[in-house]
Amino acid sequence: MNKLPIMNYNAISPELLARFSDITGAEFCHTDADSCARFGHDETEDLKFPPSVVLRPGSVEEVSAILRLANEHLIPVTAIGGQTGLSGGALPVFGGIGLAMHRFNRILDIDENNLQVTVEPGVITHELREAVARRGLFYPPDPSSMGSCFIGGNVSENAGGARAVKYGVTKDYVLNLEVVLANGEIIRTGADTLKNATGYNLTQLMVGSEGTLGIITKIVLKLIPKNTHNVLMLVPFYNAGEACQAVADIFKAGMVPSALEFMERDAIDYALKYVEGISVPIKDAIQAHLLIEVDGNYPEVLMQEAEKIAALMEQYHIDDILFADTPDEKNALWKMRRSVGEAVKANSIYKEEDTVVPRFELPRLLEGIKSIGRKYGFSSVCYGHAGDGNLHVNIMRDSLSDEEWQHQVPKGIREIFELTVALRGTLSGEHGIGLVQRNYMDIAFNPTQLALMKGIKSVFDPNGILNPGKIFPDTI
Amino acid sequence: MNKLPIMNYNAISPELLARFSDITGAEFCHTDADSCARFGHDETEDLKFPPSVVLRPGSVEEVSAILRLANEHLIPVTAIGGQTGLSGGALPVFGGIGLAMHRFNRILDIDENNLQVTVEPGVITHELREAVARRGLFYPPDPSSMGSCFIGGNVSENAGGARAVKYGVTKDYVLNLEVVLANGEIIRTGADTLKNATGYNLTQLMVGSEGTLGIITKIVLKLIPKNTHNVLMLVPFYNAGEACQAVADIFKAGMVPSALEFMERDAIDYALKYVEGISVPIKDAIQAHLLIEVDGNYPEVLMQEAEKIAALMEQYHIDDILFADTPDEKNALWKMRRSVGEAVKANSIYKEEDTVVPRFELPRLLEGIKSIGRKYGFSSVCYGHAGDGNLHVNIMRDSLSDEEWQHQVPKGIREIFELTVALRGTLSGEHGIGLVQRNYMDIAFNPTQLALMKGIKSVFDPNGILNPGKIFPDTI
Repeated sequence: MNKLPIMNYNAISPELLARFSDITGAEFCHTDADSCARFGHDETEDLKFPPSVVLRPGSVEEVSAILRLANEHLIPVTAIGGQTGLSGGALPVFGGIGLAMHRFNRILDIDENNLQVTVEPGVITHELREAVARRGLFYPPDPSSMGSCFIGGNVSENAGGARAVKYGVTKDYVLNLEVVLANGEIIRTGADTLKNATGYNLTQLMVGSEGTLGIITKIVLKLIPKNTHNVLMLVPFYNAGEACQAVADIFKAGMVPSALEFMERDAIDYALKYVEGISVPIKDAIQAHLLIEVDGNYPEVLMQEAEKIAALMEQYHIDDILFADTPDEKNALWKMRRSVGEAVKANSIYKEEDTVVPRFELPRLLEGIKSIGRKYGFSSVCYGHAGDGNLHVNIMRDSLSDEEWQHQVPKGIREIFELTVALRGTLSGEHGIGLVQRNYMDIAFNPTQLALMKGIKSVFDPNGILNPGKIFPDTI
Repeated sequence: MNKLPIMNYNAISPELLARFSDITGAEFCHTDADSCARFGHDETEDLKFPPSVVLRPGSVEEVSAILRLANEHLIPVTAIGGQTGLSGGALPVFGGIGLAMHRFNRILDIDENNLQVTVEPGVITHELREAVARRGLFYPPDPSSMGSCFIGGNVSENAGGARAVKYGVTKDYVLNLEVVLANGEIIRTGADTLKNATGYNLTQLMVGSEGTLGIITKIVLKLIPKNTHNVLMLVPFYNAGEACQAVADIFKAGMVPSALEFMERDAIDYALKYVEGISVPIKDAIQAHLLIEVDGNYPEVLMQEAEKIAALMEQYHIDDILFADTPDEKNALWKMRRSVGEAVKANSIYKEEDTVVPRFELPRLLEGIKSIGRKYGFSSVCYGHAGDGNLHVNIMRDSLSDEEWQHQVPKGIREIFELTVALRGTLSGEHGIGLVQRNYMDIAFNPTQLALMKGIKSVFDPNGILNPGKIFPDTI
């Protein structure tokens, strides 16, 4: 297996800089400290890695020319989107070129005959969802950051969201991609079809590859008809473990809700303090909530399912179920749920882990996380997509010392991931590995598996210029 | 990019044969002509490629030992399953080892808590579906050969079936795989989770790779709750193009049927002659049928949807819609649909193409196929999964001369695929490329794309021992 020369990058000489600037035009080439700082962070902890130059290409030909030149001169290239990532995937950790994809912001075609949309990677996910909704169509993936994240970032990290439990994640909607390879060549990964058994699945290999295999410049997504109705309920549990247990019961009863979210008491408390204009009365002894949605076209069926779900929940120690009756009430509950991350961050820097296990293992995972936290002296706020077994663990910095934060907490995180893998789960459900989880990859994969991945990387990017320092651990 | 030494195989010496026999035990090692002939075909045309030896391993350790030895001595290894393939994917075209996976026939675990099943590759798909159905669970992919095909073959070819239009294909259910690599190392490709954003998606890379990247020894599949009701109808069209057009209307009206099958007049005529005990009166002027199913848990909703669909169909020139009222009637219609391939074959050898396009393009594809057939002097029977845009084209040998069959017909097939790709489609929706479509790959992929695939192949199988002669065209 080839070793990648990943540390062996060149600085960008003034002559080279001028050539890059010629490609994009000077107005889309920035080397000032402010611009570099602006593109040098995402939403991961308080990490800052400014690129040496920010290029904002306007066409696939410009991306191709930039990559050809960068590849020839061994300059790192990191694609940058909405900067909402939670694993540091878009941080230019070796400097070099920050390739800001903001000008790729067009929805090129909404194909109502085939239920497909062709879109550029710099379109904001929420705007894409709204545009197709106006034609009666539905693009389900809805990461909490959908108001500002880019669809290209969603594809690169294989983003999920609250509706994944019924509708799947980003990968389940990507039919075909236009990709610029490290050497500047432009390819399509597949075809615009629902089925494809033609050669290796380059499309699915590209999805979730975090900008390390190519730069995505066009995306063909599958759409489905939009449902007309939904019912949303908030279920308060006196016992957090029981809330996790209750999740599996719904599926066992033959129902697939369109959302099934878990929030620890702390998560909801932070969100209620942070988000204005929302008030939910919660008894002191409540430990956790489930937010449950069912959707479809037949309101009478949804009411039947909601009642069946309520009956299942009432087998546990719960307080009164809150049904959201109006669109405003529904929006308020969703806003509360989606704001948990920001709300916690407003209180303290945290390290966020994106654990995922088979969903019946959630109670064991939650209990283990708390126990590991006690051992290493950190507190955590847990919430996430319980229907998928995907639990976000926000480990709070609070008053931890630098030593504890940088050396003790990672030991605890390692134990959390070991537990996750022991429960047949893995490191990340929807945030990607990026920068901050890469040194835990040895827990999920042995050297053989990592060597296969590294071999694939070498095939696509032999010089290792694309988003170096991501996914792969330092040790290989 | 490495070139693979794909022609450079060694014969199996008597000494080596003894070592292989030691691995499996002599009773599971066969070199007699009958055994080799028995494993030297599938359902593709009348092709015959017997292996030099048939090995029937009983454990992953045996598979590992076989591959280690084969890799060391450059012996080709071709996995063989239910032998129902339609692209020649399991034919040992270079001889060597035919690795018959029939002893991997256990359903290891039906996990009702997590809606998953862990299964060995030699389990017959229909038996798997029945076993999970007895627990109220549903494994949707239902290739027409499901009564005898193996789930391992389904994964290797990314098989589809009639329910893919609503429920997706095999790839949408594969969560994790145990795979033996060419060098004998055993890996897992992912985790047993619904979401996974942890490194490159080796699971999806393996699905549909037709036995060229590794030998699958264990499969973890996602299941969903089983629906309780369905409605099935057969709609006779006086115009085949209109039948194709009508398909898109159903989705545009916001409905997703659980099956939407198209059959040309000839397809149904062959099937009615071939399958005993079925009679469907069809007027002479009928050119095609749609077989449409909706499913769910609420019969009253299904009746509403069926009526809406019927109303949409009545905008075209159709004869009376036949509703299947009893389970027996439903089974008879499905049996008729599933028997088309066999029925046509009973009449004449054919070459089957597995074209797939965005579904709104079906009328243009069908018209083009007929026109190309007239140009090259062949007739074709077309049918398939219209909801997915997946049209099977059976090109009949009939009275064509050897010269026409071997040289003229492939020119016509090339034109059919060129049309398919021009319509944003591709070569295979669910049968794979295997042996017989590989020399059309240049139509769907340029040399850059093929070189990426070949590079991936080299990473997994540097000596090219796994299923050589498949997927890749002769020219690269």
